[in-house]
Amino acid sequence: MSESEAYRRGLQRRDQVMGPAGGRRRRMMRALHPDLEEHLIAHAWGDVNARPGLDVKTREMLTVGILLALGRDREATTHLNGALNVGVTRDELVEVLLHCSVYAGFPAMVTGAHLLADILEERGELSLDDEEG
Amino acid sequence: MSESEAYRRGLQRRDQVMGPAGGRRRRMMRALHPDLEEHLIAHAWGDVNARPGLDVKTREMLTVGILLALGRDREATTHLNGALNVGVTRDELVEVLLHCSVYAGFPAMVTGAHLLADILEERGELSLDDEEG
Amino acid sequence: MSESEAYRRGLQRRDQVMGPAGGRRRRMMRALHPDLEEHLIAHAWGDVNARPGLDVKTREMLTVGILLALGRDREATTHLNGALNVGVTRDELVEVLLHCSVYAGFPAMVTGAHLLADILEERGELSLDDEEG
Amino acid sequence: MSESEAYRRGLQRRDQVMGPAGGRRRRMMRALHPDLEEHLIAHAWGDVNARPGLDVKTREMLTVGILLALGRDREATTHLNGALNVGVTRDELVEVLLHCSVYAGFPAMVTGAHLLADILEERGELSLDDEEG
Amino acid sequence: MSESEAYRRGLQRRDQVMGPAGGRRRRMMRALHPDLEEHLIAHAWGDVNARPGLDVKTREMLTVGILLALGRDREATTHLNGALNVGVTRDELVEVLLHCSVYAGFPAMVTGAHLLADILEERGELSLDDEEG
Amino acid sequence: MSESEAYRRGLQRRDQVMGPAGGRRRRMMRALHPDLEEHLIAHAWGDVNARPGLDVKTREMLTVGILLALGRDREATTHLNGALNVGVTRDELVEVLLHCSVYAGFPAMVTGAHLLADILEERGELSLDDEEG
Repeated sequence: MSESEAYRRGLQRRDQVMGPAGGRRRRMMRALHPDLEEHLIAHAWGDVNARPGLDVKTREMLTVGILLALGRDREATTHLNGALNVGVTRDELVEVLLHCSVYAGFPAMVTGAHLLADILEERGELSLDDEEG
Repeated sequence: MSESEAYRRGLQRRDQVMGPAGGRRRRMMRALHPDLEEHLIAHAWGDVNARPGLDVKTREMLTVGILLALGRDREATTHLNGALNVGVTRDELVEVLLHCSVYAGFPAMVTGAHLLADILEERGELSLDDEEG
Repeated sequence: MSESEAYRRGLQRRDQVMGPAGGRRRRMMRALHPDLEEHLIAHAWGDVNARPGLDVKTREMLTVGILLALGRDREATTHLNGALNVGVTRDELVEVLLHCSVYAGFPAMVTGAHLLADILEERGELSLDDEEG
Repeated sequence: MSESEAYRRGLQRRDQVMGPAGGRRRRMMRALHPDLEEHLIAHAWGDVNARPGLDVKTREMLTVGILLALGRDREATTHLNGALNVGVTRDELVEVLLHCSVYAGFPAMVTGAHLLADILEERGELSLDDEEG
Repeated sequence: MSESEAYRRGLQRRDQVMGPAGGRRRRMMRALHPDLEEHLIAHAWGDVNARPGLDVKTREMLTVGILLALGRDREATTHLNGALNVGVTRDELVEVLLHCSVYAGFPAMVTGAHLLADILEERGELSLDDEEG
Repeated sequence: MSESEAYRRGLQRRDQVMGPAGGRRRRMMRALHPDLEEHLIAHAWGDVNARPGLDVKTREMLTVGILLALGRDREATTHLNGALNVGVTRDELVEVLLHCSVYAGFPAMVTGAHLLADILEERGELSLDDEEG
């Protein structure tokens, strides 16, 4: 696969996962240095994430698990949103959080719960009143 | 120990350590999924943290050290407060920070110092004027 | 779910994933302290891993990704074997390794490749002659 | 080297790298406990960072790489500024970020890019209009 | 405290914790570069570990918790031995392991259990027959 | 740069850094899946490591610092050798180890010292008799 083919395929996958939210970040990277953005799109998204060997939902759950385990909260927020965008359900993400509590510790789960609750509130899919239900 | 016994014991320990501050977090988790909150209270707090084999002060110091080493700042803030709540002194927490500088690097100590200073200011137990003393 | 029910369910799941290999490890833990083994089986395996919300293959891929990201090589070996035991294919594990290279760095992928190659050789499913094919 | 000599040398190196920005942080640490500040200045800066065996630019690049790899964002911001202060160029920092993508994963690079872009904007050395250029 | 005083105090603390086992390691470091050994003894052991603010048993438990959380197995082995040398009991170390399962994940506990079981067997304080008891 | 150009450039850089030692590892990866080896050579080595923006010695020191900080001992051994292969001196590597003690903790330094001492002994450049000198 040529570089430009990888870039094109990466952009497509990224749009699918991130939605319009990824645009601002890409502009920031290009402003800093065009190679940062190209490297991210062509290699992370195009050469790896867009491979057919695993479906996109499994990849996003895997990504969320790794990012919470490593404590990379900013990126975890991005991919919790991405996971919801490609059809991972809220209940499946709760399972990923519970799974993280075992293999990376409860703080990974608790932090993930905070991030996910904030995202769902922003999307209008969670309110604290739910708990009375 | 039955699940409900572990939950009851966990809730009691958690209230002792976290004080009323833990309430908002528990509501958020229940809103996301009741199993998250129950898992946290029954297993993290009830089955482990409330065990008699180590006193609560030693446990909180251990928790703070681990969380700072792993860079889990949000949780570290929670447990620095928790440590103070159960009687760990400010000077003992300073020792934990110094200890972290050796085994996890100075950034763990410096971050911990920022978090602890913010907490003490909020509690009215530290002001920058102290330094003139 | 009562503790003993969680333990029973955990043991069943663990046998499914680990096979007979898990027995020696469980004896070691019981010798050290029975609570270590019970805590691992009832809570890690019974209360979380055996939950129906995610299928066992997805859970093992998630586990392998988290363990390689965190650099827990000994446990990663255990779960690479476990993943193969529950039907994750060699090619799917290669995808998990490639995915790790993006989200946790190439060293996580390279270490995972070494561990997986050793496991496959032991199982008689890989030989260095394969590469001439 | 006596303690006071290490402290004096550390203070000098720290001022060179951090500039006036380090002052507020030092006051906070002294308020918390004088030993925290002395330990940081004498041992981290004086006994190690100020050693002649590696030039200050290489040390700051190394520091930035390690901090981004470990996910210590707050400290990484401090040392991205420090690196610029001692003459590491924006393009060299971009290389460090790209290098991090390989050895610590793309999230370390992406987080570092966000932090660096914010710093350069604050210094008036980057605007999003650059990208149209 | 002068450097040589810190070194002297560090050596004394290190001998107390590590016993004769620390000697071979110190020779290796001196052979590589004398400053490595002096830095370790004077600053890690003398300036921090030997401080009176926390007792030596609490420090060793804290060290073990941090090292297992960070996955530094080689060093964890050293300090599990050190903890036993200064009077931390086997049951207290089991509590530290259980505590790690919550705040750093079960893999930290399981790895710690393997390391501790090996150490106790070497010391003649554990045999697999114990489990039949 | 086309994929094949990146691969060619990566192979050249890798041979320069790793020497003949890299061959066995590449065969293992190709046996597991050809894409693993191609991904590593083309993207890690060709697209990033071989970039002209930082000299090869600085890159290897940066790599060693990151790998020791993350606790990836197996890879750290490979790159300590690589650093020596491209002309980083033993004393410069000692400085990297001391630098790691500050930013990633003493265990990163101590582990790195063990790995480096083993490498130098294998190369016939260190013997424990050196210390008597």
